[in-house]
This record gives sequence, C-alpha cells and structure tokens, in this order.
Amino acid sequence: MKITMAHGSGGESTSELIRQIFAKHFHNEVLDRMEDSAIVPGNGRIAMTTDSFVVTPYFFPGGDIGRLSVCGTVNDLLMSGSVPKYLTCGCILEEGMDMDDLDRIIASMAETAREAGVEIITGDTKVVEARTGKGGLMINTAGVGFARDGAQCEPSQCADSDAVILSGTLGEHHAAILGSRMGIHNNIVSDAAPLVEMVNGLMNAGIHVHAMRDVTRGGLGTVLNEFASASACCMNLQEKDLPVSDQVRDFCGILGLDPMYMGNEGKMVAIVPKEEEEAAVKIIRGSRYGENAAVIGHVEKNADTTPAVVLHTQIGGRRVIGLMYGEGLPRIC
Amino acid sequence: MKITMAHGSGGESTSELIRQIFAKHFHNEVLDRMEDSAIVPGNGRIAMTTDSFVVTPYFFPGGDIGRLSVCGTVNDLLMSGSVPKYLTCGCILEEGMDMDDLDRIIASMAETAREAGVEIITGDTKVVEARTGKGGLMINTAGVGFARDGAQCEPSQCADSDAVILSGTLGEHHAAILGSRMGIHNNIVSDAAPLVEMVNGLMNAGIHVHAMRDVTRGGLGTVLNEFASASACCMNLQEKDLPVSDQVRDFCGILGLDPMYMGNEGKMVAIVPKEEEEAAVKIIRGSRYGENAAVIGHVEKNADTTPAVVLHTQIGGRRVIGLMYGEGLPRIC
Repeated sequence: MKITMAHGSGGESTSELIRQIFAKHFHNEVLDRMEDSAIVPGNGRIAMTTDSFVVTPYFFPGGDIGRLSVCGTVNDLLMSGSVPKYLTCGCILEEGMDMDDLDRIIASMAETAREAGVEIITGDTKVVEARTGKGGLMINTAGVGFARDGAQCEPSQCADSDAVILSGTLGEHHAAILGSRMGIHNNIVSDAAPLVEMVNGLMNAGIHVHAMRDVTRGGLGTVLNEFASASACCMNLQEKDLPVSDQVRDFCGILGLDPMYMGNEGKMVAIVPKEEEEAAVKIIRGSRYGENAAVIGHVEKNADTTPAVVLHTQIGGRRVIGLMYGEGLPRIC
Repeated sequence: MKITMAHGSGGESTSELIRQIFAKHFHNEVLDRMEDSAIVPGNGRIAMTTDSFVVTPYFFPGGDIGRLSVCGTVNDLLMSGSVPKYLTCGCILEEGMDMDDLDRIIASMAETAREAGVEIITGDTKVVEARTGKGGLMINTAGVGFARDGAQCEPSQCADSDAVILSGTLGEHHAAILGSRMGIHNNIVSDAAPLVEMVNGLMNAGIHVHAMRDVTRGGLGTVLNEFASASACCMNLQEKDLPVSDQVRDFCGILGLDPMYMGNEGKMVAIVPKEEEEAAVKIIRGSRYGENAAVIGHVEKNADTTPAVVLHTQIGGRRVIGLMYGEGLPRIC
C-alpha cells in the first residue's frame, strides 16, 4: 500500500492512517484522546526544542529516520540540563510513500521514545505531492523537558583546567549514512541513541557539568570551537586519547575525511571540573552507550589565552582545529 | 536571491540565513541565545500541540502561510482552554525558494505571534531538493500553552438546551485559497486570525464554555458532528441564523460548494449554557474578529436523542448535516 493524497484529506482515509499506524504505535493515555492539543502536567521551568529530519535513506545501518527524530530532540533537551518529557510528531508524507516503511519508522520512533522515557503526546500528518518520484517522509519533533533546579550548563561556563570528556567514539553516524548512500558495505553502524542514562547519571551524582553538547552535524571540532569562543578558552586535546574505532578511522582515511568533523547522533562532550573528571568518566562508562568514554583534553584559560581548539598530536606536534571547512556532506539528519 | 542546498549545511550560509531572516524577525530574549533548547518559565499543567503547513500558494488574499502557521497552532491551544505561550518554528525549505518571499513569510509569522501574545522561542531550518521546480516551504509550528485551572472544555460536555455560538461568517479562508488557485478575482479574503481576544474574554468573564473548536478543515458540519457523537446530542441549527457573507454564498453557489463544510482559519464554535448565551455572544461580538458572532442553534439531549446535526431550513424543512463527503479540496493549510 502506498500513501495517496487522500491520506492527507482530513477525512476517513486520514483517520484510518492515524489509527492503523500512528495511534497503534504511539498509544498512550494522553495521545489516545485525539484532541488537537494534549494537556499534561507541567513544571516551574521548561525547556523547548524543535528539529526536522529529512535524511535519506530512511533506513541505514544501526537506525532509521524515526529513531533519529526522537534521539535528536531528546538529546537537545538533555544538553540544556533538562529532563526530556513530551514530544510532538509532525509528519509530512509524500504521495507514494510505502505504508510498510512508514509503519516500521513509526514503530521505531515509539520504541526509541520508550527507551528515552518520553511520551509522544500529540501529532499531525500532512501529505504533499511526491518530490522524488518514489515517495518520502519528513519528520518534525518538538520536545518539552523539565528544567532541573540548579543545573547551569552553558558553554560560557568552561573554566581553566576543566576536563573535556567525550562519551564515545567519533563519526559512526556520519560514516553509516555516507556508506549507505555510496553503497559501501562495511560493519559501521550509526550510533543514534538517546543519552538519557548518562546525563541523568551525571546530574544525579551532582557532577558540576559546566557545558554539555551532543556531537552532531559539524562534529567535535565545531562543538569545541563554539565552547572555546563562548568562554574565551583554549581546548587542549590529546590525539592519543581521542576515541575513534579502527573501522571509522579506515573509512575516513580512504575518503579523506577528518573524524573531528564527522557527525554522531549518540555522543556527547561534557566539560567538568578537573577534580570531578574521574567520577564523571566512571558514570558515563557505566551508562548505556558510554562504554568508550574518555577524558580527551583540558581547558586552558588565563590572561593570555587565545580562544582555540588545539590537538596535540602523538608525535609531539600541535594542530589547530578550526571551524569546519565546507559542508559536512551528506546531510545526516 | 534563492535558497541553495548550502543554506542547509549547518555552516556559515545557514548562520547567515538564520541571522538575516529568522533572528531578525523573531528576535526576543530567549531565541537570541541561539541554544538548541530554550528554557522558559513553565506552569503546573501545560497544553502541547503541533501542526505542519504545506498550503500553496504561500500568499493569498488576506494572509500567507506564515500567518496561518501561527494562527493554527495558537487556536488549537486556545480551544483546549489554555493560554498560548510559546511556539517553535521548524522550516523545511526547498532549494530555489525565493529569499524575499521567505523574508515576508517569516515577518508575517513574527507579526502574527506578536498579535497573539506568544513568543517563538526556538527553531530549526532544513533545506531539501526542490519538489516543484520553483522552490517551496513547509512550516511546522509546535506550541505550548498554560492550562487554566477549572476550565473544562470537552466535546463530551455538551448538554441539553446549550447554545451553539458561531463567532463569525463561514468559509472565507477556504474560498480565498480556492479562488487563488483557480485564478478567480473577487473580494473574498482569508479570515486567518488568532482568536486570543475572544477566548480570553469568555474565560475571564467566567462563561461556562462546555466545548470549543476552531472551524478549520472539514468545516462547521464536521466539528458539530464530532460534538454530537462525543456527547450523544442532537445539534439543532437554524439556517436563517447561519452567518455567511453574500460573496461566499455566491462563490459557493457557482461552484456547488456547501458553506457547512468550508474551512475557516479564524472562526470558532462555542457551546455554552443557554442562560449564558447572550453574555457570551456579546463578549465575542465585542472582540477582534468576532463582530458577526451569532447563536446558530441549540443542543438537544434526552433519552430518545439520536446524535446528529440537523439544519432547520428557512422554508420549514429539516436537513441532516452528515459527515463531510469527499475531501474538501484544495488543501487549505
């Protein structure tokens, strides 16, 4: 079965589509009321975010656009120091979209939401004329999280001697999408994952996280440059400590890509006080998706510091990691 | 200037686009922080909604897709009895989109948000390959509102003898879009509007609104059928009291359309206790966009009632208004 324009009519076909796919997988007490707005318990301070996902292919090693659409929004909420709670799901379907594919993608969204402990409480579906001739899908997820009292994570908080912790190996998601599009067969799988357990772990243990960011489009190099300029710090990284899998390293080597600029969808960088670095790494390593976490460098900030990201290479050299040059193709989310 | 794939790269072109168009128009303290999540004051109970807008043409008499994208989400929040507060803006641009058109549309979103008293606090922009060859735009807005204590608006609350109040004339938005697409020149303009003032008026005056719904896709006929089946009531409407402008009546007559199923984007129907109907109509008539409000019928509910919507015609006949037949083309939002 294919999606037709009638599925976007607002009439019986739309109701059927919603019942048979969206309501079936997302099923929860709030969504089931099928009102135009969902009313849920709130909080004194809330975090809001939105992200649209237009990546192709929809299915790739290690994930799909549905999993990605939940992880991206959940992780954005987490990085602000909030507890992700509710998601909305706005789907724009292209005429010709395969219904079984849609079913798998929505099932994947639902499963990822359960894993992340968030509820998808309201949604909307539109159908547009086919762009590609073979049907397609764009997903917007907006999210609300509850801000934690006391948590103050902002790039400007990075301070002298803070540890730079990376939660795992670089580049998997980017390499998986690129490999899929190029028809390359290898064992690299996307790392798309909700980082709820590791962030909650850090917060609940009272680690004073100064800044946190998920490593997505633009890669680690981009995130750390933003931190460096927001806090007027120098980020000194040790090349030997950077976690990169052999497979991704080889893949990058062949294609001339730099893991420092490759996008992930299930990794984060956290800046924590030096005296808490061991405890923080231990918590992340003990959490789901954090087994390869490592301290990859330290922050330097004094009167003479020029904001920069500097990689200290294994042979004793210094390489300045600038802003990403070019576009980081293909689109990864 | 046209949108190119580079505007979706996440690099310098994306930043420039965001600065020159989105940040310029949406400018507010929260958005200006440009974080992935926006943190704002919350509330004990919140309402959430999402809607995607894919209508063409982007500009039509009386409005544009930007104004529509704010009104639709604001009105959905209002209809749940909540006070709309925050909006997210997720734009998917097609390669080739005209930058001046985008600028006008985003300016219109900003202006409508100001009128509605909501803040657009976070956003996301993606660029996809052109679908139509001439560039295009899809907008998702998700919204958060603060639920009012005590307000309990639900279709199931409709009770015997309640008044059915319509806030104005039927069909303008639908006729304006249809006329635009058909190249028909007349004076019909879309009624797209945020209904904040009239809903706040009713709530603040303590009117016991049993159910409220904006009259959008599917029209008044569809809304009242949903109310009738949710509350097992019969909605008796008086044809002579239905507000329809002469222009829309003529337009519908020529094309064989029924105003009962035409979509609006700035009208609502409210079900209120009979003893409060005069006060409610007065409040709505005194509010912006409510000058043509009228009691159009009453609810009947007793042991023998069959849920239905019945139009009592001017010549003394009875016409059952069923669920919408067909699709209500063209897409109006």
